[in-house]
Amino acid sequence: MTDAGRVRLRFQPGDREVRVPPGVSVFEGASWNGIAIDSTCGGHGTCKKCRVRIVDGAVPVSQLDIRAFSPEELRDGWRLACLAAATADLTVDVPPLATRPKAATVGVGRQVILRPAVQKRYVELVEPTLADQTSDLERLLAALDDLELRVDLYALQRIGSVLRSSDFAATAVVVDDVLIDVEPGDTSGRRYAIAFDLGTTTVVATLLDLATGTPVAVRSMLNRQQPFGADVITRISATMLDPDALGRLRDLAHDTLDELVREVCKEGGVAPEEVYEVALAGNATMTHLVLGIDPEPLGVAPFIVSTRALPELLASDIGVRVHPRARAVVLPSFGAYVGGDIVAGILASGMDRDRRLRLFIDVGTNCEIVLGDANRLLATAAPAGPAFEAAQIRCGMRAADGAIEVVRIERDELLVQIIGDAEPAGLCGSGLVDAVAELVRVGLLDHSGRFVPDAVARGVAPALADRLTEVAGERVFVLHWRGDPDDASGAVFLSQRDVRELQFAKASIATGWRLLLLEWGADVEDVSQVLLAGSFGSYLSPASAVRIGLVPAMPLTRIVSAGNVAGEGAKMALLSVQERAGALALLEEVEYVELSDRRDFNDRFMAELGFPA
Amino acid sequence: MTDAGRVRLRFQPGDREVRVPPGVSVFEGASWNGIAIDSTCGGHGTCKKCRVRIVDGAVPVSQLDIRAFSPEELRDGWRLACLAAATADLTVDVPPLATRPKAATVGVGRQVILRPAVQKRYVELVEPTLADQTSDLERLLAALDDLELRVDLYALQRIGSVLRSSDFAATAVVVDDVLIDVEPGDTSGRRYAIAFDLGTTTVVATLLDLATGTPVAVRSMLNRQQPFGADVITRISATMLDPDALGRLRDLAHDTLDELVREVCKEGGVAPEEVYEVALAGNATMTHLVLGIDPEPLGVAPFIVSTRALPELLASDIGVRVHPRARAVVLPSFGAYVGGDIVAGILASGMDRDRRLRLFIDVGTNCEIVLGDANRLLATAAPAGPAFEAAQIRCGMRAADGAIEVVRIERDELLVQIIGDAEPAGLCGSGLVDAVAELVRVGLLDHSGRFVPDAVARGVAPALADRLTEVAGERVFVLHWRGDPDDASGAVFLSQRDVRELQFAKASIATGWRLLLLEWGADVEDVSQVLLAGSFGSYLSPASAVRIGLVPAMPLTRIVSAGNVAGEGAKMALLSVQERAGALALLEEVEYVELSDRRDFNDRFMAELGFPA
Repeated sequence: MTDAGRVRLRFQPGDREVRVPPGVSVFEGASWNGIAIDSTCGGHGTCKKCRVRIVDGAVPVSQLDIRAFSPEELRDGWRLACLAAATADLTVDVPPLATRPKAATVGVGRQVILRPAVQKRYVELVEPTLADQTSDLERLLAALDDLELRVDLYALQRIGSVLRSSDFAATAVVVDDVLIDVEPGDTSGRRYAIAFDLGTTTVVATLLDLATGTPVAVRSMLNRQQPFGADVITRISATMLDPDALGRLRDLAHDTLDELVREVCKEGGVAPEEVYEVALAGNATMTHLVLGIDPEPLGVAPFIVSTRALPELLASDIGVRVHPRARAVVLPSFGAYVGGDIVAGILASGMDRDRRLRLFIDVGTNCEIVLGDANRLLATAAPAGPAFEAAQIRCGMRAADGAIEVVRIERDELLVQIIGDAEPAGLCGSGLVDAVAELVRVGLLDHSGRFVPDAVARGVAPALADRLTEVAGERVFVLHWRGDPDDASGAVFLSQRDVRELQFAKASIATGWRLLLLEWGADVEDVSQVLLAGSFGSYLSPASAVRIGLVPAMPLTRIVSAGNVAGEGAKMALLSVQERAGALALLEEVEYVELSDRRDFNDRFMAELGFPA
Repeated sequence: MTDAGRVRLRFQPGDREVRVPPGVSVFEGASWNGIAIDSTCGGHGTCKKCRVRIVDGAVPVSQLDIRAFSPEELRDGWRLACLAAATADLTVDVPPLATRPKAATVGVGRQVILRPAVQKRYVELVEPTLADQTSDLERLLAALDDLELRVDLYALQRIGSVLRSSDFAATAVVVDDVLIDVEPGDTSGRRYAIAFDLGTTTVVATLLDLATGTPVAVRSMLNRQQPFGADVITRISATMLDPDALGRLRDLAHDTLDELVREVCKEGGVAPEEVYEVALAGNATMTHLVLGIDPEPLGVAPFIVSTRALPELLASDIGVRVHPRARAVVLPSFGAYVGGDIVAGILASGMDRDRRLRLFIDVGTNCEIVLGDANRLLATAAPAGPAFEAAQIRCGMRAADGAIEVVRIERDELLVQIIGDAEPAGLCGSGLVDAVAELVRVGLLDHSGRFVPDAVARGVAPALADRLTEVAGERVFVLHWRGDPDDASGAVFLSQRDVRELQFAKASIATGWRLLLLEWGADVEDVSQVLLAGSFGSYLSPASAVRIGLVPAMPLTRIVSAGNVAGEGAKMALLSVQERAGALALLEEVEYVELSDRRDFNDRFMAELGFPA
């Protein structure tokens, strides 16, 4: 791939070069790449502080430039960065900052300049007189004249008594371009937001201090929609069978989020009314359900989302009781099976900014795969089935106390690591992948995925051969004996069918990234890094993932656990309006590759079923 | 006054000339003056249909013009009228209309071109396939690509099931630039709105068919806030004494409006869900209360409104249950005592479009006065007291059954006209003015406002002299005897103190318009027309109003009853987005003249107390 369609921005001093889509403003191009330019309005063209000098390349003079600069300055190339559209390569001189912006590290080592949508401004106003009957609102807005604000009725309902109870010294609360409240006195030190990762199984809330960008409290709990089914398809089915189910699923999602709000606010010593914005990342089904949007079209061919970009929303639209007029950002979906969690993941991992070719895999029942670099991004979804969630695995269980999460075979000895201080009770997804990978490595499973005959087993691993036995006529490998050592049916084991389930799952994923590589025109060797994401993927052992062929074979140091990227992306959307805009821009930049209608899918899938030699 | 600050627009064919403030678009300049230019987006710069040719004068080429016209057309002066700002005099060729716009007559003979904010579009969409997974919303918006729409979550919640229940043939409901709903099938023939005149005493609702501009049903009822006091000051006081009163007053206003909704919808055969927009005109206090905004700053010096222009509102913000996402337009206030009802009145009477100097008087407890023409408008408020509402008048009553509303003396005989088929029970405001005017005319009241001695009375009006008597030691004139003809205390009468009350009220009003004339630099003779407005003013006899000096002396044909201009203004805001924008523009155009801090106010007030010779 070439840089076709991108323009180069070179920033001085420091000589940093970035490439952005044509038309992006110099201000945004800088912000997206961690280069700070002065601004109080956040790039809305109102504060006139983002002064830069274009030293190479041409940028037309805007109406506002004429007001912000003298004719000499305009001739010398001075422009407002937020209005300077980069339509061709430019070199830009950035003056030293008048105020040092704060930055926070989030996502996969991303440095984000703090420009939250939530702003607070403390003002001391001159009191009205008969000679100056300016309305309360106009009086306040005049003190905020670097912002062009819309006004929420709630702020109007409060402004009169707040100003008069505080001798006209008050704090304006602004989210994006909306004045949502006026608070008596100076409350500018306290502004908070909450980022939600709304998973099908687990929901995580992070309370952020927007002044510093730091997390104040984090809590997680199970999604209360669980009784309607473990995966998205069963929940969509529920809405098709019962007309009340959509409303109940929405309410259960709201209850889950709202309980987390109570918990993080209590833990962080923050009043819910001090939370002025929330952000949410989730897959398309979770996003539809939490907003009360019928998910049926997601679940049946041709798999249609109601919308990609979502409208302006309030926190109350996702059922959380924080500030009554707090805003909500719900990260958008590319399609029915590549949702806002993946948009958040691309944002958090910076895949759209990195010049290296990287492969992002969010492993789960539905596995999302993204391949690309700063020039081109391809995405697809692979239906992996529930093996990784340990459903349909004979001794499968969630990653909870008692689950075997790590399996190692060292010098003919089986070592297992258990979650919590408990007796092994089952096998979670990462343990399943480890167990299969180790058994393949020592030769107890052959490369087609079949347990070897006892005779072969005694040859390759004499101390473990006794663990190969039968339960209900099916060949199994016992990981942990419980009760009667002669009765494997009570043990924690891996069955032949479990191995097959995992083979189907990993073949689906591997077919996905192989087809993306083909579409891109790259080989496995061209991939610089693999990011394993999601609540399950992040816990996978890179060695085991390579061993079973779930990810391309490469040095293990280049296979990275990306952590909870959905939650990190939601945090970034709260910390920076530029990052938020970047997430929306992804909708136009990422190409979706549909696998299900490819003629070569089945052949490639069959080829991926075995384990690498 | 000159035309300084206005530019002239000459429209061809027809050679009609209008004058507008500089910067107004050619499209709006035409619309405000009833000249129709093609448009489907209503002047938002998106449909590119408002093609006109500038044949004299210069208009710069906009970015959109470049896309809409060929270079030859641009050279020939073709421009999009909605983007063509009139900064100097222009002559404009308007092509014949592709579609004939409908117009309606509203207000004081105003011809309004129908361009309601509510639009419906019936579309038949191609169904999605695996090869075309465009989201439901993007699919719909692509069919509405002459509009640039924001989307309400409600529309998103419904779009999936509506499209699939109707084979993708559906109607988009748009208000302003917001898609608020999607309805199955073709419902484009049914779109309704409701205009409210929220008076302190009486509330009127008019259900409008937006397709034709015609009223479908009209209902009125008493404002349920009445138990909190008859006038705005007692209601403001209530909120200052009781912290719960604001909430209760808001709820009572909501109840009043919502009951009227039920009534007009039932009468008109319209489902409330088919009402997509409402508009409300009221004084500043009523506007604050209905929106739950603390009115206290309105009631105490220095008399401050929370805001002049109001934010984007929903019908639910004023408590009416129509379409769940219907929008609300609340007409803005100039100040604490010149409210949205007067903005509506200026709009409905076209005072800002007329080249004649006109005087607008809304007579009531608080009397609003506007003087001006298309070049300059002055407004003030005069505290007239409750005489016109017949409070503090001994035999005063509301204009209800039994009220004497007209009083005439012809050939020494007293003639009265009663509301309804009832025995006279009291005197309403118009009857009070009539009675005093007639008694002055025949000489039973002298020009200082004192009843003449009996001897004089027998001389000037022998047949009426017996009606001059005493009640509780006070001199009265009996209008109607009830019961014992020797006991005037049971009769309907006019007392000396009643006359004094009226003198104070009319002196306050007359001082108001005299000071406005002084401020303007015009004489009474320069005034072409007097408009008597409001639920009371519209019923006043012009002859009596002149006789007592309430309005300037002039030929009676030039004193016009303007009717319920507040309600008419609210209707206009619903029928035309251009008229609505005109109402907002008034906030910048009207100069408010504060009377209370004028040194000459008291002297002039004293001079106005007597009756004209």
